[in-house]
Amino acid sequence: MLGEFDFINWIRAQQSKSDLVQLPAGDDLAVLKWPADELLLVGVDQVLDGVHFDSAVHSPRAIGRKVMNRNLSDCAAMACLPAAAVAAVALPKGSDLQYARELYLGLKEAADPFNCALIGGDTATWNGKLALTVTILGRSAGIKPITRSGARPDQEIYVTGPLGGSILGRHMSFVPRITEARAIAAACAVTSMIDISDGLSRDIRHVCDQSRVGAIVFEDRIPVHGDAVTLRHDGRSALEHALHDGEDHELLFTTPGPVPANLPAIHIGITTEEPGVRLRTASGDVPLDSKGWEHKL
Amino acid sequence: MLGEFDFINWIRAQQSKSDLVQLPAGDDLAVLKWPADELLLVGVDQVLDGVHFDSAVHSPRAIGRKVMNRNLSDCAAMACLPAAAVAAVALPKGSDLQYARELYLGLKEAADPFNCALIGGDTATWNGKLALTVTILGRSAGIKPITRSGARPDQEIYVTGPLGGSILGRHMSFVPRITEARAIAAACAVTSMIDISDGLSRDIRHVCDQSRVGAIVFEDRIPVHGDAVTLRHDGRSALEHALHDGEDHELLFTTPGPVPANLPAIHIGITTEEPGVRLRTASGDVPLDSKGWEHKL
Repeated sequence: MLGEFDFINWIRAQQSKSDLVQLPAGDDLAVLKWPADELLLVGVDQVLDGVHFDSAVHSPRAIGRKVMNRNLSDCAAMACLPAAAVAAVALPKGSDLQYARELYLGLKEAADPFNCALIGGDTATWNGKLALTVTILGRSAGIKPITRSGARPDQEIYVTGPLGGSILGRHMSFVPRITEARAIAAACAVTSMIDISDGLSRDIRHVCDQSRVGAIVFEDRIPVHGDAVTLRHDGRSALEHALHDGEDHELLFTTPGPVPANLPAIHIGITTEEPGVRLRTASGDVPLDSKGWEHKL
Repeated sequence: MLGEFDFINWIRAQQSKSDLVQLPAGDDLAVLKWPADELLLVGVDQVLDGVHFDSAVHSPRAIGRKVMNRNLSDCAAMACLPAAAVAAVALPKGSDLQYARELYLGLKEAADPFNCALIGGDTATWNGKLALTVTILGRSAGIKPITRSGARPDQEIYVTGPLGGSILGRHMSFVPRITEARAIAAACAVTSMIDISDGLSRDIRHVCDQSRVGAIVFEDRIPVHGDAVTLRHDGRSALEHALHDGEDHELLFTTPGPVPANLPAIHIGITTEEPGVRLRTASGDVPLDSKGWEHKL
């Protein structure tokens, strides 16, 4: 019977080279030489069977890609470059080595295009469902990290793409907006940014709360994805899907000025001194409640 | 009903100060300024219900402490200082906020004595069992990281304390040997080191394989913990428990010379040019098979 150390030995043979890495996966800890002129950004994101994917439907390759892409999307939200990642996997007993390898190849498939080195991990089996956790290290690489807290009143609010209906499949296959984030941050004064993971209505509130501003979102400017239109017969309109669905992983950002036309930026609203998030409709302003995703405790 | 954001807001109020941290938990990623003269060490370790703890028996405080201590023990194994950590928790649906807080307080209780800042996390609920994952960042802080691969033939093998029977309780309450590791590494030329998490017989093999040496372990020098003696009626001798049980989290290390007597180091064997791990008994040398812990795939 094969075991975790066969898996670890196989992983060691897969590792991509990275200038940062002095000692890759295989010891108690990996060792990196961090560039002196770069800030280090760190975050963690997990995917769980039955919540973020369905192991009966989605391939291990797609599951691996998703958790890595969620972490890469956090790098996009800060306008940093991914540098390295570690992963922990809790495998249901009876999973075979091939399944574990496919998870890893999914991680790698998502990480490689962004030169993000997989430098460590932890593999365990249990009488439980599949859980996969990735921690990412990002580097500032010449751009000051963009937080959620820098928006000021009377700034413009943009998103990088159409929203809603990601459950039809895009939640497993989105492309993290790292290239777009870096281009936008280099071209204009971005004061705050977040990736839309919990839904526009909830994520815009994170920015407003942390920046101590309010916002007005123009209903007729929300870019509604075709998938949201497809879903409109489930009792919620396409607009509602665009406002509240999660896992689009487009970016929401604020800036005092216009964004150059060659960049993917759709103007959807303005920040206000008055707190609260409102939706400007043809019949007036209404509160835009946060209906996006929140884990209940 | 409370949710993950109530938990996140509570966590933000708990965070300890750290000179490294420019932006703590609460944004998409935390931001650190890494000292230019220090290497960055990174690793991840998870604990799973039914494998590393039993949620019906162990308190959330103890579970939080354990996963953090496992990660701190990896720092000990490299002789680095812990600097910062992030945590991901998959909570069974129905867990309340108090339970989540206790997990966090367990993490913090273990991390605080080593000035390890908790700088981020991910909280989710699912129809699954409790899983808790910590990623740790360590700093070299003036000592070159000690790997598993530096042992050479004819060096001395030491462990830092008695082994075996940790299942009786020490696996939940061990103290990571960071202070000891730093003192030993500062006092003598440590050529390789590992923490004993999978059992002496397996972890010594990791060192031998990665250093391309063999080892002879003297049966009569193995420090047998009282817990191993207590367990000797289960069909395995106290010695067998000391050789093969996991989760002691004492350190195993090699060095060419003796260790000053004021340091916790018990001499148990020597490295050899001939590959393989052997146990030297009163009736001759016998192979020491790796019977320690391995997750099966």
